[in-house]
Amino acid sequence: MTHDDMKALEARIDARIDETLDFWIGQLGRLCAQPSISAQGVGIQECAELTATMLREQGFSAEILPTGGSPIVFGESAGKSNRTLLLYNHYDVQPPEPLELWETPPFTLTRVGDTLCARGVSDDKGPLITRMAAVAAVRDVLGELPLRVKYFVEGEEEVGSPNIPGAIDAYKDKFAADGCIWEFGSVDYSGRPEQTLGMRGLCYVELSVETAAMDCHSGLGGSLIPNAAWRLVWALNTIKGPDERIRIPGFYDNALPATARDMEYLAKQPDDAADLLETYGLKGFLLGKSGGVELRRMAVFEPSATINGLDSGYQGPGAKTVLPARASAKIDFRLVPDQTPEEIVPLLRAHLDAEGFEDVAVRYVAGVKPARTDPDDPFVQLSIQAAEDVYGLEPIVAPLIGGSGPLHPFIHVLGVPVVTSGCGYPHSRVHAPNENIRIPDFINGIRHTARIITRFAAM
Amino acid sequence: MTHDDMKALEARIDARIDETLDFWIGQLGRLCAQPSISAQGVGIQECAELTATMLREQGFSAEILPTGGSPIVFGESAGKSNRTLLLYNHYDVQPPEPLELWETPPFTLTRVGDTLCARGVSDDKGPLITRMAAVAAVRDVLGELPLRVKYFVEGEEEVGSPNIPGAIDAYKDKFAADGCIWEFGSVDYSGRPEQTLGMRGLCYVELSVETAAMDCHSGLGGSLIPNAAWRLVWALNTIKGPDERIRIPGFYDNALPATARDMEYLAKQPDDAADLLETYGLKGFLLGKSGGVELRRMAVFEPSATINGLDSGYQGPGAKTVLPARASAKIDFRLVPDQTPEEIVPLLRAHLDAEGFEDVAVRYVAGVKPARTDPDDPFVQLSIQAAEDVYGLEPIVAPLIGGSGPLHPFIHVLGVPVVTSGCGYPHSRVHAPNENIRIPDFINGIRHTARIITRFAAM
Repeated sequence: MTHDDMKALEARIDARIDETLDFWIGQLGRLCAQPSISAQGVGIQECAELTATMLREQGFSAEILPTGGSPIVFGESAGKSNRTLLLYNHYDVQPPEPLELWETPPFTLTRVGDTLCARGVSDDKGPLITRMAAVAAVRDVLGELPLRVKYFVEGEEEVGSPNIPGAIDAYKDKFAADGCIWEFGSVDYSGRPEQTLGMRGLCYVELSVETAAMDCHSGLGGSLIPNAAWRLVWALNTIKGPDERIRIPGFYDNALPATARDMEYLAKQPDDAADLLETYGLKGFLLGKSGGVELRRMAVFEPSATINGLDSGYQGPGAKTVLPARASAKIDFRLVPDQTPEEIVPLLRAHLDAEGFEDVAVRYVAGVKPARTDPDDPFVQLSIQAAEDVYGLEPIVAPLIGGSGPLHPFIHVLGVPVVTSGCGYPHSRVHAPNENIRIPDFINGIRHTARIITRFAAM
Repeated sequence: MTHDDMKALEARIDARIDETLDFWIGQLGRLCAQPSISAQGVGIQECAELTATMLREQGFSAEILPTGGSPIVFGESAGKSNRTLLLYNHYDVQPPEPLELWETPPFTLTRVGDTLCARGVSDDKGPLITRMAAVAAVRDVLGELPLRVKYFVEGEEEVGSPNIPGAIDAYKDKFAADGCIWEFGSVDYSGRPEQTLGMRGLCYVELSVETAAMDCHSGLGGSLIPNAAWRLVWALNTIKGPDERIRIPGFYDNALPATARDMEYLAKQPDDAADLLETYGLKGFLLGKSGGVELRRMAVFEPSATINGLDSGYQGPGAKTVLPARASAKIDFRLVPDQTPEEIVPLLRAHLDAEGFEDVAVRYVAGVKPARTDPDDPFVQLSIQAAEDVYGLEPIVAPLIGGSGPLHPFIHVLGVPVVTSGCGYPHSRVHAPNENIRIPDFINGIRHTARIITRFAAM
């Protein structure tokens, strides 16, 4: 197909998207009306069935795959070529609480000016509908899909996707694809679309110490009896010091540095340091950094150890002279490629033992591996170019972001390059009351996915 | 008076104590029936008035002195000589909760076998009644008191006696005395009476850190944004390490070591190390100590730093990937003579500043100075000998105990030697449900105080 032919085709597809917009906003309302709160076990099966029904209405075969947790909805349609595009989304949402802060009913899609409001409208029912709308528009214009499309819609993303790696191992052939669009995508304050190519991993552990059968009076025991809170403090202190270097031997062995190509993309990212300082009321960042590409590199390419919580003894008002028998801390390690949570736990255990903290128990709570797609993969470059064409602005490319998700089995078990596309913006209030998207972003999300489909088929 | 005359006199007083025992158990019931919970502000004024009434019924003048907190009941009676004995007690009690664990009503004195059960019966209404009973028995037998007696009965001991040092400064002349009996006294498992000659001081502080205006997602901020929990851990780690040495420069400057005389008394104390290990389910004590005089020295003559509580971030079940903006710790320092809480706070502040923790705030919550009476004071030796005569066993002398109380202004402002006497035993369940004393201990407590009165008058 010539460049001009492609432009003409995409113009016809865009027109079809405009014609069907109201229908798809209606479908978004239908999906948002079904609560699907994985943290509370509310409406999961019902929403899986609704998702399957909606896929079938669009001519897809759809099945509901058990995982041990929330089921996966798997939809599939043949296309002109055997090249396969995998669409990863999730039908579960965050709890709507606190309800009193919602200005519109959380499970009723409500249009307010140019925005659509409901729980899940940005994370992640809106993006799922943009893909259904794009697939339908392309098929309507071409008469058939130019490539094979698979939907992988899971239902436990909001609780850490604990069963997804296992499900991908189990159904590897079923999910096989040549490229994948990840669940999310946003524009920044200036309207530039963001393209995310990797996520850090996570290793979440709880450390706990029990030094005695019961708490003791500090007058009796202060000079005599081991104190769980002190043991915990000393153990934590061996894990990281004010230099922010994680002191667990071997921790960094598999941590890959940013490449020259990563640094190029980081250099082109907007500098949001001032915004961050203001939002969080900070005097400065760690290690005296104030902004620039080095701050952005550190933010994602340095693995981190965050104490999420400390708990010991008396925490009420005033004085209680107690010597606590128990203390615990929650810590998450954010991991960079090629670290894994599976290797960190024994390293941590060995480190604590070597430092004399055999009494500090380590419990592995949750984890995912880090993963990233090669920025130079042609599918990635295709998605970046398509975004630039749709949004009219140069995309912001993030070779890695600080957060974590079940990206690893897609990239490393299924072996597909993964790009992002969605309909969010900085005020989408994801996970918060009054979650919303803007209709122009919704349209652009549909157009971006449609262009990925047509260009990937032609590639 | 000859030794035989004194023995004959004391036998008559003991007989009078036996005759009046039921009356005084009744008076103890009357006092225990009046709740007086300083922590909850329940019945304080009423109990002060009842105490004053009971003193007046015994021929004492009694006044209720305001302190800014709970009032002090001050009672006074002239005697044959101008030598003055001061009796320190408190009419307030600990809260009775948890109520469901009481086997008898907490504010109804109930006899169960040989024990008397009620809140405050050991701490400290029972000891107060033993003194009233001893004073009455001596006066009944002699026709008049052989020396001047003053009662100092406060009402906020259970909340740290915050207004007592100020009240003693304000009413110094009124409280002037030549010797003082402190509020408490017990026998140990073998029936040996305990004589306490000093208490450690206390400096209770709260450390807190605020690193940001709000909590942050750990994926976003883990490598970028200061974490209050880490700041707190690192700051605490500079205060004490696993060697148990407090690292605040100047902390030990005024800490006096145990004297040779102290070590003699410590050497004669029973070895309760095995009991402690069993009670608290310990594998061992701090610094690898297993028992003996060195353990007992360390327990009280080494100042301590106890973390009483740690509080930061998420402490619920499972994983929350939060980077906390706030963290706090409560710490109590137990002080030995001649350390003071007033000197420790600025030393701690200077230390944290020097270590780079200007961001860690220090709030002084409460404190008392350590204090001790010279073991060789004749009044002390008199009390020890009187206890040996009453109990028929060699008293256990503690030159210093691990706990803290408002002892300092008595010894160092009023300038009086202070001894102990009471009616407790190891299962008195002080501060707990089913607080109780044994009637034979109650009688011995009365006899001990009566002997102190007669012998101190004759000294």
